[in-house]
Amino acid sequence: MLCTACLKIKIIDIFADYPVAILHPNIAKKLGVQHLDRIELKNEKTTKVFVVDTSMSYVDEVSIGIFKDTAEELNLADDIEVTVSGMPQPKSMQFILNKIKNKTLTDDEIKEIVKDISYNALSETELSAFITAVYINGLNIEETTALCNALVNVGDKIDFEEKIILDKHSIGGINGRVSMIVTPVIASLGYKIPKTASRSITSAAGTADAMEVLAPVSFNINEIKEIILKTNGVVAWEGKFDLCPVDNKLIKIEHALGINPEGIMIASILSKKKSIGSTHLVIDIPVGREVKVKDKEHGERLAKKFVSIGKSLGIKIKVLLTDGEEPSGNAFGAALEAKEALEILEGKYFDNLANKACAIAGELLELVGEAKQGKGYELAKETITSGKALSKFKEIIKAQGGNVFESSAIKDAKHKITINSEENGKIKNFDVHALTKIARIAGAPHDKEAGIILFKEVGDNVKKGEPLFDIYSNSEDKLSYSKTFAKENKAIDFEKIVIEAIN
Amino acid sequence: MLCTACLKIKIIDIFADYPVAILHPNIAKKLGVQHLDRIELKNEKTTKVFVVDTSMSYVDEVSIGIFKDTAEELNLADDIEVTVSGMPQPKSMQFILNKIKNKTLTDDEIKEIVKDISYNALSETELSAFITAVYINGLNIEETTALCNALVNVGDKIDFEEKIILDKHSIGGINGRVSMIVTPVIASLGYKIPKTASRSITSAAGTADAMEVLAPVSFNINEIKEIILKTNGVVAWEGKFDLCPVDNKLIKIEHALGINPEGIMIASILSKKKSIGSTHLVIDIPVGREVKVKDKEHGERLAKKFVSIGKSLGIKIKVLLTDGEEPSGNAFGAALEAKEALEILEGKYFDNLANKACAIAGELLELVGEAKQGKGYELAKETITSGKALSKFKEIIKAQGGNVFESSAIKDAKHKITINSEENGKIKNFDVHALTKIARIAGAPHDKEAGIILFKEVGDNVKKGEPLFDIYSNSEDKLSYSKTFAKENKAIDFEKIVIEAIN
Repeated sequence: MLCTACLKIKIIDIFADYPVAILHPNIAKKLGVQHLDRIELKNEKTTKVFVVDTSMSYVDEVSIGIFKDTAEELNLADDIEVTVSGMPQPKSMQFILNKIKNKTLTDDEIKEIVKDISYNALSETELSAFITAVYINGLNIEETTALCNALVNVGDKIDFEEKIILDKHSIGGINGRVSMIVTPVIASLGYKIPKTASRSITSAAGTADAMEVLAPVSFNINEIKEIILKTNGVVAWEGKFDLCPVDNKLIKIEHALGINPEGIMIASILSKKKSIGSTHLVIDIPVGREVKVKDKEHGERLAKKFVSIGKSLGIKIKVLLTDGEEPSGNAFGAALEAKEALEILEGKYFDNLANKACAIAGELLELVGEAKQGKGYELAKETITSGKALSKFKEIIKAQGGNVFESSAIKDAKHKITINSEENGKIKNFDVHALTKIARIAGAPHDKEAGIILFKEVGDNVKKGEPLFDIYSNSEDKLSYSKTFAKENKAIDFEKIVIEAIN
Repeated sequence: MLCTACLKIKIIDIFADYPVAILHPNIAKKLGVQHLDRIELKNEKTTKVFVVDTSMSYVDEVSIGIFKDTAEELNLADDIEVTVSGMPQPKSMQFILNKIKNKTLTDDEIKEIVKDISYNALSETELSAFITAVYINGLNIEETTALCNALVNVGDKIDFEEKIILDKHSIGGINGRVSMIVTPVIASLGYKIPKTASRSITSAAGTADAMEVLAPVSFNINEIKEIILKTNGVVAWEGKFDLCPVDNKLIKIEHALGINPEGIMIASILSKKKSIGSTHLVIDIPVGREVKVKDKEHGERLAKKFVSIGKSLGIKIKVLLTDGEEPSGNAFGAALEAKEALEILEGKYFDNLANKACAIAGELLELVGEAKQGKGYELAKETITSGKALSKFKEIIKAQGGNVFESSAIKDAKHKITINSEENGKIKNFDVHALTKIARIAGAPHDKEAGIILFKEVGDNVKKGEPLFDIYSNSEDKLSYSKTFAKENKAIDFEKIVIEAIN
């Protein structure tokens, strides 16, 4: 009632991610607020909190600017009168300050923070402070569990009315679509596995991008449920539904800052699994110098947390630390990765990607008691050699509305060049970031057919002039750029006795 | 050159604080960027880095939306073609990550961070992470000094071509315009004192608001120099010129988060003093339960840092820890505080505000050797009792273009009510936050005449029904609200033997 202004709505014709209101500086002063403070906008029908921005040019002293998406959501049109008043920070900002001051947060405090994030009551600036504080001061097991539960409670949930739901998750994998093999293997044995996957941000392809080469991947909760009830498996893009809307907001800021606090990462992964009803979960943590987890000790510490929090959530978890030094499979790029997965299921070859998929599927099968200890891998592999997994995958592709059932039906890019070795030697290491960059320069992930096929593995002996990899692209220009980049940036290291000679 | 899009400018008709560009999600994907990432926009004439926002509705796949202020700055009009490419994070974000990881930053790293803030190359999200990390992990003396120097280097500077420039600064004072007394006292003795001051954000009035009752306060660097050369003194609003543009950006985020990391606060204060050429500085740190510095130990620690960093900047600093438990003076509100300052200079009374002003001015006079040790206070007081400080203040008011020279010329608000004591007792404590809130509800700082005049001090014996304070307002409604608030929220505590009886 006090320090209130009566203003007219002025709609700004763009969509914003975030409820921002634009005030004239004099009105802001009158309300005792400034940039990044909060105001409450009210009329008979609606009440909503906005973060303040000020502008002299767009709004005058009788109007308040709001963005189109919020206007539509609140049924506000130009010139509607509203009363506007200054608002204190939400209570949850106090809890964020407590984390900044290295205090342990209670379940209720974490719940309040998550609730306010879900209502957009905390700004990106405040979320950034929260993420930074959690990165520095950490979350203990109880806080992480509380965060996980809070994230589950604000999002959509799927209930398959089934006691056993299997799932897998890889942390920071670079290439190789393990999920496109594990899913049909598990589903072919009668277990439900609702695999949700992301699109590429910085990689050559995400699992959702690769699966999309074969079938649509964008489904709502009910559609996913229908596909699972029909076939036991699905490989769907996680961005269509809102399993964890708050988590998506946190991930945005984490990506912008380039930090991924462990507590938030664990809660983020497990909350999505909980929301989709998973009861048995294998987590694959690649360990290597170029991936997220650099050494075994870190991997073990992380694994223990996953298992412990899984217990309190009712999810049986097994963590596998895997070799993160070598690419998984030989393909980088959506179509090429989809083709590799199909070729493996078709029995054309059985490479390190197939091996990894069977190891993960095997652990899942042991976890649910379908296979005896040590026998899961063989059971998984058998579904591939028998063709059972392939026919299950075809069922899944069909149920998702796809029409690409064979690897030979996947189109190649228009252009291709081969990069040959410029030296003799034994391959010591692949630079997966350089390979990813070559694939992206060639057009991935936008150009689905663009990418790389490797011909060699770590430890192979190579002669000068022998092919190392092919680059694919639909654009001759991009192919030529990527060739230049590949020549200038060695993606493959050879073993050397003398690294450098200095005199 | 790679992952580049050729787009047409679409100008969005609002001003933004910050260079944001709006891309269609498909274009963002093509460029490999997402919300909060960076892009570089380029044509023959200009190159500029923007932070990415995505929207499907405002821009299509051939256009890029930018805000009006940036468009004007870069001479970009609708439909001009530009090439757009993804950009890596600025190098300084790596240094911010180092601070998040509790590493000590080098001079060059701090310089790079400040440079990027000044170019708007760091987003508010990233600044928030920086401020949070500095709050938690701290800055050592060398880092604070480096930050201070870096802040000085990116802003405007004033050179008075004078060897001795005096100044004062108060940290977290609530009311009482000490600067409006110290400035004429010092200037009347022939020393230059270019006092820059802020407007109110959360208080009843800032020094700039109070001074504005007597004279304009909004000057550029050259105008300030001119006034100082004429009169030796000025009381100017610090928001008109850019002594420390980067500092202002940091303060915005600090205010939004409600944290003020010590290292940034020290660098912020001292960089402004260095930019204005100060050589001798007295810093007043009120110590009390309701102000920023809660205890003497904290005050002493802070004081040592100020003195030490001052040394390396060439500023001779004396820090006074003062009583922050009681209001300074009896007025809350711009006009009422201006009136009190003038009345003191006119010799009408000599209260605790006058006392504090003479203590601060006295220390300054001792610091420059104008007064012997222990004699500064008397010398300062003498300029008041002799009328010298008053006539100097009138000169300053005139030089600033003002026309209010006497306290009797300051207009009172239209309405006034008196709040009487509801009990007998001895005053133990004032709640300055409650008093501030009462003044703000009455209309301060927007209504310049709104505010409070206190009749009592801590330790006074008061009878039931005796007047405690008057509330002033130009709005009868607001006055009535503030009266209600004052009745419901006791702003004055009385000494009590029994605080509560429980049975």
